[in-house]
Amino acid sequence: MRENLIDLVHNSTLKTVNGKVATYIPALAEADGQQFSVCLTDINQSYEYGDTETTFTLQSVVKVISFMLAADHHGLTMMMDFVDVEPTGDSFNSIVRLESANTKPFNPMINAGAITVASLLPGETPTEKVEVVTSFLEKLLQKEITINQKIYQSEYDSADHNRAIAYILKANGYLEAGVENAIQTYLQLCSIEVTVGDLAEIALFFAQDGQNERICIDGAILKVSKALMLTCGMYNSSGKFAAFVGLPAKSGVSGAIIAVVKSGMIEDLKGPIGIGLYGPAIDTVGNSVAGVDFLMELVKKYNLSVF
Amino acid sequence: MRENLIDLVHNSTLKTVNGKVATYIPALAEADGQQFSVCLTDINQSYEYGDTETTFTLQSVVKVISFMLAADHHGLTMMMDFVDVEPTGDSFNSIVRLESANTKPFNPMINAGAITVASLLPGETPTEKVEVVTSFLEKLLQKEITINQKIYQSEYDSADHNRAIAYILKANGYLEAGVENAIQTYLQLCSIEVTVGDLAEIALFFAQDGQNERICIDGAILKVSKALMLTCGMYNSSGKFAAFVGLPAKSGVSGAIIAVVKSGMIEDLKGPIGIGLYGPAIDTVGNSVAGVDFLMELVKKYNLSVF
Amino acid sequence: MRENLIDLVHNSTLKTVNGKVATYIPALAEADGQQFSVCLTDINQSYEYGDTETTFTLQSVVKVISFMLAADHHGLTMMMDFVDVEPTGDSFNSIVRLESANTKPFNPMINAGAITVASLLPGETPTEKVEVVTSFLEKLLQKEITINQKIYQSEYDSADHNRAIAYILKANGYLEAGVENAIQTYLQLCSIEVTVGDLAEIALFFAQDGQNERICIDGAILKVSKALMLTCGMYNSSGKFAAFVGLPAKSGVSGAIIAVVKSGMIEDLKGPIGIGLYGPAIDTVGNSVAGVDFLMELVKKYNLSVF
Amino acid sequence: MRENLIDLVHNSTLKTVNGKVATYIPALAEADGQQFSVCLTDINQSYEYGDTETTFTLQSVVKVISFMLAADHHGLTMMMDFVDVEPTGDSFNSIVRLESANTKPFNPMINAGAITVASLLPGETPTEKVEVVTSFLEKLLQKEITINQKIYQSEYDSADHNRAIAYILKANGYLEAGVENAIQTYLQLCSIEVTVGDLAEIALFFAQDGQNERICIDGAILKVSKALMLTCGMYNSSGKFAAFVGLPAKSGVSGAIIAVVKSGMIEDLKGPIGIGLYGPAIDTVGNSVAGVDFLMELVKKYNLSVF
Repeated sequence: MRENLIDLVHNSTLKTVNGKVATYIPALAEADGQQFSVCLTDINQSYEYGDTETTFTLQSVVKVISFMLAADHHGLTMMMDFVDVEPTGDSFNSIVRLESANTKPFNPMINAGAITVASLLPGETPTEKVEVVTSFLEKLLQKEITINQKIYQSEYDSADHNRAIAYILKANGYLEAGVENAIQTYLQLCSIEVTVGDLAEIALFFAQDGQNERICIDGAILKVSKALMLTCGMYNSSGKFAAFVGLPAKSGVSGAIIAVVKSGMIEDLKGPIGIGLYGPAIDTVGNSVAGVDFLMELVKKYNLSVF
Repeated sequence: MRENLIDLVHNSTLKTVNGKVATYIPALAEADGQQFSVCLTDINQSYEYGDTETTFTLQSVVKVISFMLAADHHGLTMMMDFVDVEPTGDSFNSIVRLESANTKPFNPMINAGAITVASLLPGETPTEKVEVVTSFLEKLLQKEITINQKIYQSEYDSADHNRAIAYILKANGYLEAGVENAIQTYLQLCSIEVTVGDLAEIALFFAQDGQNERICIDGAILKVSKALMLTCGMYNSSGKFAAFVGLPAKSGVSGAIIAVVKSGMIEDLKGPIGIGLYGPAIDTVGNSVAGVDFLMELVKKYNLSVF
Repeated sequence: MRENLIDLVHNSTLKTVNGKVATYIPALAEADGQQFSVCLTDINQSYEYGDTETTFTLQSVVKVISFMLAADHHGLTMMMDFVDVEPTGDSFNSIVRLESANTKPFNPMINAGAITVASLLPGETPTEKVEVVTSFLEKLLQKEITINQKIYQSEYDSADHNRAIAYILKANGYLEAGVENAIQTYLQLCSIEVTVGDLAEIALFFAQDGQNERICIDGAILKVSKALMLTCGMYNSSGKFAAFVGLPAKSGVSGAIIAVVKSGMIEDLKGPIGIGLYGPAIDTVGNSVAGVDFLMELVKKYNLSVF
Repeated sequence: MRENLIDLVHNSTLKTVNGKVATYIPALAEADGQQFSVCLTDINQSYEYGDTETTFTLQSVVKVISFMLAADHHGLTMMMDFVDVEPTGDSFNSIVRLESANTKPFNPMINAGAITVASLLPGETPTEKVEVVTSFLEKLLQKEITINQKIYQSEYDSADHNRAIAYILKANGYLEAGVENAIQTYLQLCSIEVTVGDLAEIALFFAQDGQNERICIDGAILKVSKALMLTCGMYNSSGKFAAFVGLPAKSGVSGAIIAVVKSGMIEDLKGPIGIGLYGPAIDTVGNSVAGVDFLMELVKKYNLSVF
């Protein structure tokens, strides 16, 4: 990896002190808050930095993947009947807007929308639905994908707020599976284990508009997915991230982020480029402190904003 | 203008039947709902279609211009102290989120944020503040700029909801001028008269990242401005517009839209390209029906999405 | 029954045309919307009018009974830790105010509060909890009490919104039983069958401040219960009912109402007087049209308002 | 004054340490937080305790008086077209529920409703409108009534939130005067000066159902007014006050409370009885700490609850 990037990573790693590891479930709290690792990849080569062997869970990063795969199965028109694609200033686990009769979840990046999307994945059982995502990832990443059962169990045991969301979705006709089915599917998806290199590969697939040598998904779906990442991908800082970074990205409370560079260059890498980041110290909004800092500096240095 | 574009414009003009001219103020209701005109311009040439002589008011399109100019004066850091840049699913004239003590307006594209921004324009009186915008436009467009006094008066006479917003902003410390001063400034800005060609020139300036032979504004401000357009520029359809069009754009209830193409080609035009549209038949959300339809088809045909 | 009262009942029966039988569950929709029956009772005698043999379910009328019995078991101080006694302008099945972390349900007359109260009834299983209420009613009414299983099943099958409420209560620590347990308890309570004569006896018990020859409940609990009836007993018309009738009362969507007269006279009846009403044609808010009309006229004629 | 009452007053005075004098306007902050004075009066005699010479402003206590007088002029039907009588769990200065188009203020005890009521008082100018209330009070209290100009000015200078409310009311058609007119009227009414003896006389007038030797107001209006006091008179503790005290009462942030006893006895006093209290140390909700404590104990001792 080049000097310039090493400097960027180094500076961003220092920012980890400004964040805190998520503690809402015990299993997440065990992560090392000082860690920060990065992988950048184009179709030819990768740069890696930090402890790139560490595995962690996708958490909300999976939301954009399951949306893409459910849309691949049902088409965008049907998806739009079940979930809107509008950003909202509400917190990720908000119920308020669901309450009015027949209100669609605002977008698939908040829990309500993500639970609806989980229920729309093809298959009957949670296992079948989760397999749609894991077999996609196995094909993409050419490796076996596992669910972190400890994290899953921990999430499952404290999922009452999400169950409340799921029951309103069901009452309003926006759930295509039973509540327990949807919740188990959703939480297993959140508990999929990856490395920072995997994240970069996933991001690259988005950067390639869903087309590589092994997989092909309709480009229109990829455009919607990337628009969702840009408008709602970084929790309640999505607007600021769009303004000051300007890349489609999705974060999770594990400290994972994927960021998508359609065109442009980073040292020898040439767009499409996928970026994976892992820094478990997150800010109050839920985004990796080091990850956001790194992307902001990277975009400035290499002029990568879509704007 | 080329055949392909003529077809696109023709097809979109047929869609005007699906919209209605804004009637919330009498003066706007006089527009001809069947009209639709377009101008596309790069730094060398322009394509025009439709009745491009018609003048109309900027309405909310001005919000992104006044944000850019206030930021040019104060810097982005100070702007961020007064107005956030987060999208919100609330309607454009919502007061709800202002109510909690010390809550900043969510972004400068909703009325609350735009009124704050109006109060931040340099100058003491509304006349001085408005001149910041009109003299910028005169320099950019090389023509004299006028305020439509009839529309302004009409808006002013039905501005009580906006006054309510302004008083809460003032109570919470987010207004840098008196309420009447800010309201008059804001409503005069909305009443600036332009043609569709002017809109295209304005859009081109954004596409050029704020740099042309006569004017130079910090590129970082332009990036924030374009991010705001993409995340919140098309009222409560901003998310769908980002997903299915994917260009920074800003609309007004007069039926005006500006759309920004940073790179790419449209027939002989080469990015940066500015697009101006005027179709006073608007949908229930407030966007020109023909304008949105045209942009959706244009982006598909010429592959212009930022995603 | 006296002439004066016959006239009042007759006039109110004519008003049934202004309401509609509840249809949100099929079993309720079978009621005869033209029916209206009344029973007034003091400790010595009763007046009855209409088809007083008809049985129907308590629905929300049970909320004030289960609150009273849970408070009898736990004391008012503990009850107040789990549910507030403040009126709210929100609809009866609102979730909004529960969302903020650790927010108590506003009062036991809305579903959220009533589900919390159901979970607080002594006993482990729903059967045991329900028995607390049915055995109280058997002792009070000296008859066997049954649950309408058809209505219960119908409610149970469409209880997803209530389950959502229960899961938020649980997530926030305001549920003292499992979600299914609380929901089953709550819905069985709603499905208790009574006659209009039973309602009058129940109302009389409240009028007697919880003291009769067979049962004795702390008067302070009865005062709180009656305050809840007056401030929140008639859904979103509670304020108007207090203003224009002025009696503690509780209604249910079955068309049942109990109303409590502490002192005053109605013909030969002398306070404490209990009033039971049954008119399944309800208004848009959920109150029996004939029942409300009758009480308004009765209170005017006999000067019974507490104010 | 009798021993029993002296003890009650003494005990409640000790509770003043649990409250704080209102500080949102400087002029109120000058009050002596340790003060507590009480006056109880029936039609024959009065008991007074504490520094009964102190004058203070009515603040929100005036809301129920101006409602009564506006209703006396327009009739209840017209009043109901402009303001509902439903309690709401929202804070007294909430704007949220006004936002939906054409939403009436929920009740005349919150600022929104009180500003509407101020605009409905007969007369053109604020002076004329305020005189409706002051001349009523002069007739009732047989003394000259003054406005505390220092308090009024202080309130006027920090009235932006109330102006916001007034502008929404106007935009929605619920204001029968100009915004400044209504605000000046409302704030002058809040600044009317009284003693605790005056409060007791006012409360007695409510207890007498609006009939004494000098003044006569329709009893139906008085019943609505007292219902409003009971359901919404004590800010966001109104429900708890109804449950644990059970008297119609209205408080103000100056520490003033009026409470109305229709029937019952307090030592030698025989209902109708009016109670005036003044204890400027208020709780977080806005009610006099000593005042609420005293009423709770008084009602228990003399069994005065309406329930």
